[in-house]
Amino acid sequence: MNVYIIGIGLIGGSMSLDIQVTYPEAIIHGIDVSDAHLEEALQRQLIHQKATLQNVENADIVIVTIPVHASIKIIDEVLHTVKDDALVIDAGSTKEQICKSIAAHPKRRNFLAAHPIAGTEFSGPSAAIQRLFEGKTNIICEVEKTAFSLQEKALELFKNLGMRIRYMDPKSHDKHIAYVSHLSHISSFMLGKTVIEKEKNERDIFDLAGSGFASTVRLAKSSPAMWTPIFEQNKTNVIETLDEYISNLQEFKNLMLQDNFEGIYKEMENTNYIKKILKGLE
Amino acid sequence: MNVYIIGIGLIGGSMSLDIQVTYPEAIIHGIDVSDAHLEEALQRQLIHQKATLQNVENADIVIVTIPVHASIKIIDEVLHTVKDDALVIDAGSTKEQICKSIAAHPKRRNFLAAHPIAGTEFSGPSAAIQRLFEGKTNIICEVEKTAFSLQEKALELFKNLGMRIRYMDPKSHDKHIAYVSHLSHISSFMLGKTVIEKEKNERDIFDLAGSGFASTVRLAKSSPAMWTPIFEQNKTNVIETLDEYISNLQEFKNLMLQDNFEGIYKEMENTNYIKKILKGLE
Repeated sequence: MNVYIIGIGLIGGSMSLDIQVTYPEAIIHGIDVSDAHLEEALQRQLIHQKATLQNVENADIVIVTIPVHASIKIIDEVLHTVKDDALVIDAGSTKEQICKSIAAHPKRRNFLAAHPIAGTEFSGPSAAIQRLFEGKTNIICEVEKTAFSLQEKALELFKNLGMRIRYMDPKSHDKHIAYVSHLSHISSFMLGKTVIEKEKNERDIFDLAGSGFASTVRLAKSSPAMWTPIFEQNKTNVIETLDEYISNLQEFKNLMLQDNFEGIYKEMENTNYIKKILKGLE
Repeated sequence: MNVYIIGIGLIGGSMSLDIQVTYPEAIIHGIDVSDAHLEEALQRQLIHQKATLQNVENADIVIVTIPVHASIKIIDEVLHTVKDDALVIDAGSTKEQICKSIAAHPKRRNFLAAHPIAGTEFSGPSAAIQRLFEGKTNIICEVEKTAFSLQEKALELFKNLGMRIRYMDPKSHDKHIAYVSHLSHISSFMLGKTVIEKEKNERDIFDLAGSGFASTVRLAKSSPAMWTPIFEQNKTNVIETLDEYISNLQEFKNLMLQDNFEGIYKEMENTNYIKKILKGLE
């Protein structure tokens, strides 16, 4: 089995590690805009050999794990190149634009739109880890538009990676993921910014930071190259979440200005409900 | 050695666990407004016996780990009751009001104002864990106002708990801790609120949430009873941090509205600097 991974970073590299275990016969070909990444991926045994986009004509499976704006162009090209029975999967954090862009593609049935909810704040080949996807959710969009035999092939792969499957339409995916993922990244980046700006001349202040701060600001280490196109593609939904978040923060501030600490207490008490939601998530 | 712990929760209970190991001769007396907590603390061997505030006349060390508004009243009372050579320590997250309130107390020299930067999002006796303070920072305020022999006694205790010491004036403490701790809690609570409000009718949406969301919203599980008086005592500083945070979020939103994704990229790239700051913190 010839597997081509386009973009050998955290997601593509981690998938490769598991595929090598569950499909020992698979030959993993790596494609990346960065030759340094490819060399590193070879050294780390994330891939067996380097390849180019033309080579995907030999692919049984192509996994596209690159920033979402690049995906749109590459997936169109890859679909044109692959064999009739090849499966092409993406792993992007936005699904509406990619699904729209290949809706009328003659090879639409070779593509399966996926979003594995897995990752860390790190990126690049060095971030790849084994069993990253174990127990995680994989959202599949427009499954009915993928050829039935290729659906089966993909589901077997995801099962071997240890993932739970959820089906969703691309519009709903982008709307909900803005709340449970994209907004968290912005809140974390802006928290990091606020503290850095304030404390830039007092470096040892960070001695005072504890694990709570570290946890809340962890996502501010994420890759701008990956996240900028996500925010761009999901602009409308993300702005909606930001409006609501800012308005909740302003309301909290107003309660403080009014010395309404009973109100502050209630706000926090109501939000403690998140404990139930998070059960099993950590 | 008679140690009295007022407030047998996460902080007091964890301290007790370590004190029992490093001072095997110590008898730990527990005082709490909740008799259920005291009973649980006895069962969990966090304390050797229950006590009342009057009993602190027999104390060698009193550790006050209760919400910061209650601390102000209790510490005044405890100082009046204790022997001349007893050490009274607090562990509150705000330092200006407590230091101000006991500034003229006849027993001021028996008190040491401390803030161990340690904890989890959990509370109560069941949250107590061993070695919670290992490698953590303990901020001591107005050390010069504590009797020299009692400073020594306190430093030995903190050393046995494994803590690093930082000295700071109460005003600076409250200002900086608003950025690196209090703001994180509000950003997390309001993130939790925003997502719960939006998704309350779609419970299975939280299936889509990953470890990133869990990390960012973790502090929203914190105790309102503990945090309300902290925000009240540190109102001015907290409002300042909120103003800056909200303005950074609005700026981010405006960049998105203007389709200035180069600007969005730069914002995130600059904030990636947090990686350096967080080194060693997690």
